[in-house]
Amino acid sequence: MSIRPLHDRVIIKRIEAERTTASGIVIPDSAGEKPDQGEVLAVGNGKILENGSVRPLDVKVGDRVLFGKYAGQTVKVNGEEVLVAREEDILGVIEK
Amino acid sequence: MSIRPLHDRVIIKRIEAERTTASGIVIPDSAGEKPDQGEVLAVGNGKILENGSVRPLDVKVGDRVLFGKYAGQTVKVNGEEVLVAREEDILGVIEK
Amino acid sequence: MSIRPLHDRVIIKRIEAERTTASGIVIPDSAGEKPDQGEVLAVGNGKILENGSVRPLDVKVGDRVLFGKYAGQTVKVNGEEVLVAREEDILGVIEK
Amino acid sequence: MSIRPLHDRVIIKRIEAERTTASGIVIPDSAGEKPDQGEVLAVGNGKILENGSVRPLDVKVGDRVLFGKYAGQTVKVNGEEVLVAREEDILGVIEK
Amino acid sequence: MSIRPLHDRVIIKRIEAERTTASGIVIPDSAGEKPDQGEVLAVGNGKILENGSVRPLDVKVGDRVLFGKYAGQTVKVNGEEVLVAREEDILGVIEK
Amino acid sequence: MSIRPLHDRVIIKRIEAERTTASGIVIPDSAGEKPDQGEVLAVGNGKILENGSVRPLDVKVGDRVLFGKYAGQTVKVNGEEVLVAREEDILGVIEK
Amino acid sequence: MSIRPLHDRVIIKRIEAERTTASGIVIPDSAGEKPDQGEVLAVGNGKILENGSVRPLDVKVGDRVLFGKYAGQTVKVNGEEVLVAREEDILGVIEK
Repeated sequence: MSIRPLHDRVIIKRIEAERTTASGIVIPDSAGEKPDQGEVLAVGNGKILENGSVRPLDVKVGDRVLFGKYAGQTVKVNGEEVLVAREEDILGVIEK
Repeated sequence: MSIRPLHDRVIIKRIEAERTTASGIVIPDSAGEKPDQGEVLAVGNGKILENGSVRPLDVKVGDRVLFGKYAGQTVKVNGEEVLVAREEDILGVIEK
Repeated sequence: MSIRPLHDRVIIKRIEAERTTASGIVIPDSAGEKPDQGEVLAVGNGKILENGSVRPLDVKVGDRVLFGKYAGQTVKVNGEEVLVAREEDILGVIEK
Repeated sequence: MSIRPLHDRVIIKRIEAERTTASGIVIPDSAGEKPDQGEVLAVGNGKILENGSVRPLDVKVGDRVLFGKYAGQTVKVNGEEVLVAREEDILGVIEK
Repeated sequence: MSIRPLHDRVIIKRIEAERTTASGIVIPDSAGEKPDQGEVLAVGNGKILENGSVRPLDVKVGDRVLFGKYAGQTVKVNGEEVLVAREEDILGVIEK
Repeated sequence: MSIRPLHDRVIIKRIEAERTTASGIVIPDSAGEKPDQGEVLAVGNGKILENGSVRPLDVKVGDRVLFGKYAGQTVKVNGEEVLVAREEDILGVIEK
Repeated sequence: MSIRPLHDRVIIKRIEAERTTASGIVIPDSAGEKPDQGEVLAVGNGKILENGSVRPLDVKVGDRVLFGKYAGQTVKVNGEEVLVAREEDILGVIEK
């Protein structure tokens, strides 16, 4: 069982940031608009534009992404929490 | 007797989430912007775009969908409550 | 004497919901964004789009419609109250 | 001396509603977003659309119109109060 | 020394309303969204539309115009106060 | 060292208004949305429109401009404060 | 490891302003909407416009930029804080 997101939404599995790893991306602990990261599990078919066309998303399944902490909504699939967010809420893709 | 939704609206019958099933989608009990799920009973003819065209919806009758808890409006048809929401409020389609 | 609504507005005569009929549409009594229903008495010539075209409405005279409780404005014609609302405020058409 | 309204604005002379006439349009006395009525004295040359074209108005001089009570601004011309409103604020045209 | 307004802005010299003249336009004294009047001293080259074109204004130098009391910003040129407003804030042109 | 503004932004050096000069532009001392003036030091390459085109600005380097008092953001370049504002915030160009 | 920003976002490394250098850009110490500066580390592939096209950004890697103090979100990469902002939040490029 899985979720197929609509339009410009993506399904993200949050990944615990390696907060103590010097060479990794570390999320600050202070409160506020802090980003978070996760792996993309599924992507929608694209964003619907006002001219009627559909623009495919730039993120793909398997991407590790950064997103705003309060972006999207959390649901549980197979007992595991996932995030349903819009591509717009994704700040960037983490590359190695 | 049934409701034919207009434009980008859909009629959804809420489904009680199997909150104790480990392999199913489980909605968290905490308060807030929690998603919910249901079965699509009817869909509008499409979203009206600013260029005058009508874009058919991506959800179809029979789809099991996730949506924001406070999305849409609840009405009763034949003594049974249904939700009238916009496709925009639907987070994704649950696939098996 | 009658009212010819402009653009995407419609004139609706509210219909008392059969709140005690098990097989009919029953509006919940609790407060909030509850829908209501009525019969369409007149429709505007269409919604004006930004490209200058006019899109005819999808509801027609005689349709029984559901709408948001606080949609539109109430006026009296020939001693009878009617609702002037936008098609956008109509949730769906009740079919038998 | 008269006012030539710009674009999608119209000049309206308010008409006292025949509140006690059973067959006429009667405005409810309760407070709130109550409509009112009047006669159109002048209309603008049309609404400017984002594509640069100008769309002529649907109301014309002499029309008796319904509008939202708080629509527009009231000015005095030749000692007589008139309303300057947008066509958008007009709910409909009263026909006999 | 003068001000050349940009785009859809106009320079207006306020004219004291003949409040006691029965045949002139008289501005009510009560507080609120009351219109005012003035003479157009200069007009911008036109409103920039989203399609990249520029639409010339409908008011011209010398026009006597009505505008919302709180529209625009007041500056002093050559010791005389003028109003810099958008054409959108102008309710109409006073014709004789 | 200088700042090249992006898109529809301009760099402005504020000019003290000659508040006591009868023939100059004098800014009123009262609080509120008071305009101010300055000289344009640099202009962006143009405003990006939704159709993808770029519209060059109407103000140019050397123009003396009026702008809203709270428009833009103040930064210091070479020890001197300048204002970074959008062309939209400029009310007009002062001509002699 | 690095972040590839999406669409119109850029990755910026904040640079401490030389607040005591007379010839450098000095950020005022007072509170409010104060700009800040930094070096662009990465840029998105472009802003998605409503007509479906993608417009490449005007800032490039290596640019020294000014931005609003509260723009974007701060994350840590390799133990170093960077800012993820939209090009829209960038006031200008500092040139020497």
